[in-house]
Amino acid sequence: MDPGRVKSVSALFSNMHIFLLPSEYNGQPSITLGSEKSHYLTHVLRLKPGNSFKGQDRRGNLYSLKIVSVSRQSLVLECKEKEEHRNKNLPEITLYQCICKGKKMDRIIRQATEIGVTSIIPVISEYTIPRMDKKNARNKIDRWRRIVMEAVQQSASSVVTEITSPVSLADLEKTVDGNRINLFFHQIPLETRSLHEYLSGYPSSISLVIGPEGGLSERETELLHEKGFSPVFLRTNILRAETAAVYGLGTVQTILMEREFWEKT
Amino acid sequence: MDPGRVKSVSALFSNMHIFLLPSEYNGQPSITLGSEKSHYLTHVLRLKPGNSFKGQDRRGNLYSLKIVSVSRQSLVLECKEKEEHRNKNLPEITLYQCICKGKKMDRIIRQATEIGVTSIIPVISEYTIPRMDKKNARNKIDRWRRIVMEAVQQSASSVVTEITSPVSLADLEKTVDGNRINLFFHQIPLETRSLHEYLSGYPSSISLVIGPEGGLSERETELLHEKGFSPVFLRTNILRAETAAVYGLGTVQTILMEREFWEKT
Repeated sequence: MDPGRVKSVSALFSNMHIFLLPSEYNGQPSITLGSEKSHYLTHVLRLKPGNSFKGQDRRGNLYSLKIVSVSRQSLVLECKEKEEHRNKNLPEITLYQCICKGKKMDRIIRQATEIGVTSIIPVISEYTIPRMDKKNARNKIDRWRRIVMEAVQQSASSVVTEITSPVSLADLEKTVDGNRINLFFHQIPLETRSLHEYLSGYPSSISLVIGPEGGLSERETELLHEKGFSPVFLRTNILRAETAAVYGLGTVQTILMEREFWEKT
Repeated sequence: MDPGRVKSVSALFSNMHIFLLPSEYNGQPSITLGSEKSHYLTHVLRLKPGNSFKGQDRRGNLYSLKIVSVSRQSLVLECKEKEEHRNKNLPEITLYQCICKGKKMDRIIRQATEIGVTSIIPVISEYTIPRMDKKNARNKIDRWRRIVMEAVQQSASSVVTEITSPVSLADLEKTVDGNRINLFFHQIPLETRSLHEYLSGYPSSISLVIGPEGGLSERETELLHEKGFSPVFLRTNILRAETAAVYGLGTVQTILMEREFWEKT
């Protein structure tokens, strides 16, 4: 391996990035790492006793880590918890997800939670297939809440995603707020603004509407317009609802996270 | 609705965008649209007989469309096929997907095909759980090919995704080609280059490695480095393999598609 590259990786790593603590780590003041991670830190990243870098546990808490000692097969790290919050600069993302059938909706909720959306609002739209009577709505919401809690834990998300009761698309409130961007993905292009253009500036929150399996009706598209939502046309194929949700959330999150690398000043 | 906005949407629509032809359209020289689409074109977008705009059928073919006549409940469009191909400027995307268990791998393959990747290479990695003996490998590949064909049709993808036999991660060839970008997503940050930085310039093709459920081992990470793959650290939570694949592909595709809107000149 090119030693120049390794050195710069190591410097960048210790200044800017986050080491993921093992899943058994639970807030102790120090931890002993086994041979694989130890080799990695000392041989691949060339870190030495005394070097400090940032770490994170599986619940999203941040730590300042310092290598205390290195032996042949292990390494001891000192761990000091930090106040700072990992995603604190990321705008809040709300997913308005038109309800899809059973397992599909479950998967979208699980994946949106993994990605770290702030809230999920299940939406009843014209082409929503599952019937939502009172009793079955209660069961569904209970199941969705359990899925959210599992996904928060598995993904070490620092955001505990909120999931609300279903609302009807017609009942969405009109929000006019300069710091809020409201978007919906649509197959028929209605505007030429790109996602990068919508997300430039510093929106404090983003709302994203994703249609159900049958898509949004043209009447709903007009209604969303009237309520202050702008259409985004992604130049891709016709995506099923569950693909569109993850595709859209991933894209929005990465564009926001990497703002410093693309925003024209 | 604000008439100024409607007019500009209509102008932009007719010059720059694509109308999705109904699923029953099959290459005929003209098509009669029903009342909903007709209302949409004439009342929402304010188009008139004689106006032309671009269209696309469900198989990804492009058409020049012209409104011939409008009646109360319907509208006749003249359709002339174009040579031009919709995604012709998009670099080829190859997904190296470490094999996941049954349904998860099926879903990743379906979703990657929907998104329009050029090829999918199933990869056997250290933490790959499913056993791949010869007979069961053949069955798996046959099933994956069927899933690909279904997804190409459903998504109207203009790319007929190719899927190869599984390869071992250790056997990946080292590619050194200035026009090719090879990336892998990794939870532990090893580099500070953002996805926007990697994708600036005009790569002719992108390869993307996504780990299996258990992630890539540190040895594999080193191996990928040696073979010319660069790590990308997405500042998100710990994603499961199937979320990471769609998240990564969506992000890469959108950043490439929107290059003109962010690339610093």
